[in-house]
Amino acid sequence: MLIVMHHHATSEQMDQVIAAVKAMGLTAEPIPGSLRTAIGVLGNQGYVDDSTIRTLPGVRETIHVSKPYKIASRDFHPEATIVDISGVKFGDNEKPVIIAGPCSIETEEQMLAAAKEVKAGGGQMLRGGAFKPRTGPHSFQGLGIEGLKYLQQAGKEYDLPVVTEVMRIEQLDDICQHADMLQIGARNMQNFDLLKEVGKIKHPVLLKRGMSATIEEFLAAAEYILAEGNRDVVLCERGIRTFEKATRNTLDLSVVPLIREMSHLPIVVDPSHATGKRMLVPVMTKAALVAGAHGVMMEVHPNPAKALCDGAQSLSGADFGALMIELNSLMEFLGFQG
Amino acid sequence: MLIVMHHHATSEQMDQVIAAVKAMGLTAEPIPGSLRTAIGVLGNQGYVDDSTIRTLPGVRETIHVSKPYKIASRDFHPEATIVDISGVKFGDNEKPVIIAGPCSIETEEQMLAAAKEVKAGGGQMLRGGAFKPRTGPHSFQGLGIEGLKYLQQAGKEYDLPVVTEVMRIEQLDDICQHADMLQIGARNMQNFDLLKEVGKIKHPVLLKRGMSATIEEFLAAAEYILAEGNRDVVLCERGIRTFEKATRNTLDLSVVPLIREMSHLPIVVDPSHATGKRMLVPVMTKAALVAGAHGVMMEVHPNPAKALCDGAQSLSGADFGALMIELNSLMEFLGFQG
Amino acid sequence: MLIVMHHHATSEQMDQVIAAVKAMGLTAEPIPGSLRTAIGVLGNQGYVDDSTIRTLPGVRETIHVSKPYKIASRDFHPEATIVDISGVKFGDNEKPVIIAGPCSIETEEQMLAAAKEVKAGGGQMLRGGAFKPRTGPHSFQGLGIEGLKYLQQAGKEYDLPVVTEVMRIEQLDDICQHADMLQIGARNMQNFDLLKEVGKIKHPVLLKRGMSATIEEFLAAAEYILAEGNRDVVLCERGIRTFEKATRNTLDLSVVPLIREMSHLPIVVDPSHATGKRMLVPVMTKAALVAGAHGVMMEVHPNPAKALCDGAQSLSGADFGALMIELNSLMEFLGFQG
Amino acid sequence: MLIVMHHHATSEQMDQVIAAVKAMGLTAEPIPGSLRTAIGVLGNQGYVDDSTIRTLPGVRETIHVSKPYKIASRDFHPEATIVDISGVKFGDNEKPVIIAGPCSIETEEQMLAAAKEVKAGGGQMLRGGAFKPRTGPHSFQGLGIEGLKYLQQAGKEYDLPVVTEVMRIEQLDDICQHADMLQIGARNMQNFDLLKEVGKIKHPVLLKRGMSATIEEFLAAAEYILAEGNRDVVLCERGIRTFEKATRNTLDLSVVPLIREMSHLPIVVDPSHATGKRMLVPVMTKAALVAGAHGVMMEVHPNPAKALCDGAQSLSGADFGALMIELNSLMEFLGFQG
Repeated sequence: MLIVMHHHATSEQMDQVIAAVKAMGLTAEPIPGSLRTAIGVLGNQGYVDDSTIRTLPGVRETIHVSKPYKIASRDFHPEATIVDISGVKFGDNEKPVIIAGPCSIETEEQMLAAAKEVKAGGGQMLRGGAFKPRTGPHSFQGLGIEGLKYLQQAGKEYDLPVVTEVMRIEQLDDICQHADMLQIGARNMQNFDLLKEVGKIKHPVLLKRGMSATIEEFLAAAEYILAEGNRDVVLCERGIRTFEKATRNTLDLSVVPLIREMSHLPIVVDPSHATGKRMLVPVMTKAALVAGAHGVMMEVHPNPAKALCDGAQSLSGADFGALMIELNSLMEFLGFQG
Repeated sequence: MLIVMHHHATSEQMDQVIAAVKAMGLTAEPIPGSLRTAIGVLGNQGYVDDSTIRTLPGVRETIHVSKPYKIASRDFHPEATIVDISGVKFGDNEKPVIIAGPCSIETEEQMLAAAKEVKAGGGQMLRGGAFKPRTGPHSFQGLGIEGLKYLQQAGKEYDLPVVTEVMRIEQLDDICQHADMLQIGARNMQNFDLLKEVGKIKHPVLLKRGMSATIEEFLAAAEYILAEGNRDVVLCERGIRTFEKATRNTLDLSVVPLIREMSHLPIVVDPSHATGKRMLVPVMTKAALVAGAHGVMMEVHPNPAKALCDGAQSLSGADFGALMIELNSLMEFLGFQG
Repeated sequence: MLIVMHHHATSEQMDQVIAAVKAMGLTAEPIPGSLRTAIGVLGNQGYVDDSTIRTLPGVRETIHVSKPYKIASRDFHPEATIVDISGVKFGDNEKPVIIAGPCSIETEEQMLAAAKEVKAGGGQMLRGGAFKPRTGPHSFQGLGIEGLKYLQQAGKEYDLPVVTEVMRIEQLDDICQHADMLQIGARNMQNFDLLKEVGKIKHPVLLKRGMSATIEEFLAAAEYILAEGNRDVVLCERGIRTFEKATRNTLDLSVVPLIREMSHLPIVVDPSHATGKRMLVPVMTKAALVAGAHGVMMEVHPNPAKALCDGAQSLSGADFGALMIELNSLMEFLGFQG
Repeated sequence: MLIVMHHHATSEQMDQVIAAVKAMGLTAEPIPGSLRTAIGVLGNQGYVDDSTIRTLPGVRETIHVSKPYKIASRDFHPEATIVDISGVKFGDNEKPVIIAGPCSIETEEQMLAAAKEVKAGGGQMLRGGAFKPRTGPHSFQGLGIEGLKYLQQAGKEYDLPVVTEVMRIEQLDDICQHADMLQIGARNMQNFDLLKEVGKIKHPVLLKRGMSATIEEFLAAAEYILAEGNRDVVLCERGIRTFEKATRNTLDLSVVPLIREMSHLPIVVDPSHATGKRMLVPVMTKAALVAGAHGVMMEVHPNPAKALCDGAQSLSGADFGALMIELNSLMEFLGFQG
């Protein structure tokens, strides 16, 4: 940490700051400059809580050098993490994984039809929500446990590992019995109790970026899971909130190469929620793969016009099939083997 | 809902859209214009899911007129809600309530000292966190149940109702036994399962605005609680996330008169978290009261320089006492009786 | 400046960075830590361009301590600046100045009627736009020079100094002849050539914050004017762009006490453009004064329902008169003499 | 336009609104609903100024259907625009154009060296700034006219059309003599007087998106140029401002397919300014091409470590050469002929 003093800070104020740093068991190193003096803080093993320093007289600001995450950082764990779900591998130089399926699980028939289309197109994992986070309480909230069974059945029938969202701790047991991967949604990225519980089990986790989370907060959220022992975390960019109204969110693709450099965890992209528009999904999927995403999760529905949720951003089975032909060609171009 | 057609939409496309609207059990009313035609949708009792319409050929966009909340709306419930906590009243034209106390509960002595100072200054409620949401897992996470006891004891000793944050459903029973009001933090504003459970009990709730929540989403979150039966909800503005780095968040004070017009629920302001800077708390507290806030929640710590959390934004007891003298004078000027 | 090295940076990389700093004529001071080493850069007289350092091997990031402004900073110029316009004083502990008038100058009669109402209510300055920045070219663009004459005449008739926006350098001569203060609009806050030209003349300037400008950029824009010699700059907060759609912009009132601490320049608030809603103007005006604003600029139109521009946020003369009675009472409470 | 009435609006209020619409020469069509009534406004030839309507009693909100641009819209001009600069073609299905060169023109040698590298790599246009918009006045401001000569000379020597930024109207003549294309920078996207003047001449224009401009405002800015007669406008996405601090801006790639659908104008991407990090430029360039960009503009400097401006985001000649080999292969894959 660096403590920047005011231009006109007195030497008494300097001494008081140095004493406060020492009281924290750390070392203070003054760095005199021509305009003002700074004080380097040494000896900390991680992120320092600067609250008590920031408000001492003469202090203008404090600047952090350490980050609120360490296990998630490539700086300390250079080796890439590969998350393996029944043979479907996310991370490093593995071929990107295509996850597809409906936003919501609606009926047994719908899930079987969706799974059939996903498999036919060449998707490797199946998605579907049984518990749906909706802005208002008067919208469809999902089928619950009944839906999980349809999802699991469809996955088995078509040999596709399944991923589904968990919204509360009490659901964990049920979901672990029915799904191969747990999704933490954007609205729960900082539901720290849920993160900790998910960290204690062995199921792989798909952690979505919060709608206004910085990359630092995103990695710190992953750190909550990693710190409890579960190292199978796949990150997912799904768009951030900006002033732009033409898309549902703003897809931040630069996060892909950045996360690949800053962390050893795999990073996938969800172009369906990021854009909210079906027409944008194919093109942004391709852009995501070129940006280095370890996978893409997209919404595919047997009949988007009748979807109970997010129909406007869902591809039909035919759309998906056509897109997959293009994606396979692109992945081959990018050097991934069939 | 209004459906706006493309400039060059054909009459077949118009007919298809009208048929789709009818299939939803609603009425479609074309409104021809000189440049393009729009189609009004009538007959809905609330928010319409437009996913299936938005992607029909010839449709340019759909525009919602209904909102994802209704019970929270003043349009449908013109009467102001007053939330009464052991005689401390929030809402309408009641005198604004001052809630104060430390960010975290640290020790029995600290809570008693804080409560003494809050009482001495004239605060009406005591705050303190036993379960702390922290960005990273390596920061202090709170004392838990033990802390709740200190809080309750301090509140009883100084006759101050207490409010504390709940982060997970399993904590609800314990917290209800020890606290008079439950706080839902900004990070959990869209933790819909928690909202629903809190809606099923009778404890009053302080619901904080999410860090990037629109007013519409904020009221829709309140709707989750109200829809389950709990009508004692106090809203809390605590700053939104913007590009500005000089403050922790950007305090959005216009939300106060807006919420007062759009909803019947009380709205309070937290200037400590919004600004992150002790120096800004007094002045923004006064601005909040002038803007019409039904209360203010601020951080007060017996020794901010030694606080385990958010010391930089905490007032000392002496600061708080001095501020309360000014606030009392301001409230008298604003027409509130002692 | 502080240079933070990677955890695994080699000593050769350290040496290379130190050499690069020396090549810039500055001093490098290594600060070894337990996790990584930082290098303090000393000897710079101001902001250092770090582009060449940031990309050397082993460098993780660079952190600036100096700011891109100095003349605007209170750190270097502790004395408050008071801007005096024919006896109307902005700054320090002067009574806040009320500037009012229509968004656009429309006719001679409209300006005279507006000026009469502003004067009657107790406003001290008159505003009105002759050149209007409009999002699209098909909206009313202002009366131009003809409008300036109406403004000047109305100001003289009612003894009110006038302020009007300048949008291009060629207009400067004309506007200086007709107006007492020049306004630089939000869209031109970083039109650096205009800032420089305005810096070379002697007219006082009202500089509006850009719609997504940080406080640092806002002060750096003022620095452009100050650096050319014109020291009569009044800053104006007019709302920033966020994701919120219920208001035109988000009024950032914390900027008022922050600017008062960081700079010696006066800071005023424009609640009309910030909120875009007439109903919010009175309450946010009061909040701005309590927050410490040195003045408020608001839109007043003799007949808002017929305004050619921004009618929805304009007060009528009667609204303005009623508000001024409240404002005078509030200013008296705040300790300002009649 | 649609006018949404309050739930409890009276029939007198309805009548008043209908009368106000008629007074504007337009037709009002009531659309009764079960919860509230809306009023459709018909007969307008474009964007309606709703200020006078929005504040009538009983009106809850107004909703626009028309946009503040028309010439820029594909809805009214379905044919794609191709901008041709001495044979280099932007738009529709033309092969994407690679523009490269230094941020600032520094010396004759530097420009010649840069041009040589751009040509050698296969770039088609040369960029370089003679007038630099810098946040603070104490940074390098560019060489001015002298720089333009170096740019022009380097372009001629290596047969590359050149583009350079214009910041003020008085520079237009000089710049038109020395450059093939004029750039309007992000900070001047709403400098409407500059846009109008540029609209009156015949030089092609590269219009950068403002740092917090919506797509609607971006197209409305282009409309200013088009409306004056100049139809050779190329749009440029260069990142928008968000809360994220890890990149200089957030590159919004979805804008590419959206603009291609909404407008007939070409759209290019500037990954250098969007990300601010050299390491991200190659990968985001590829993603931009896959997203459908009609070109990419990137910073290339003979010696980035000594660049006077933005060295951290500049590629070296060798970097550029290596990237171009990849880009050519990617463009071939995308179906563009050599």
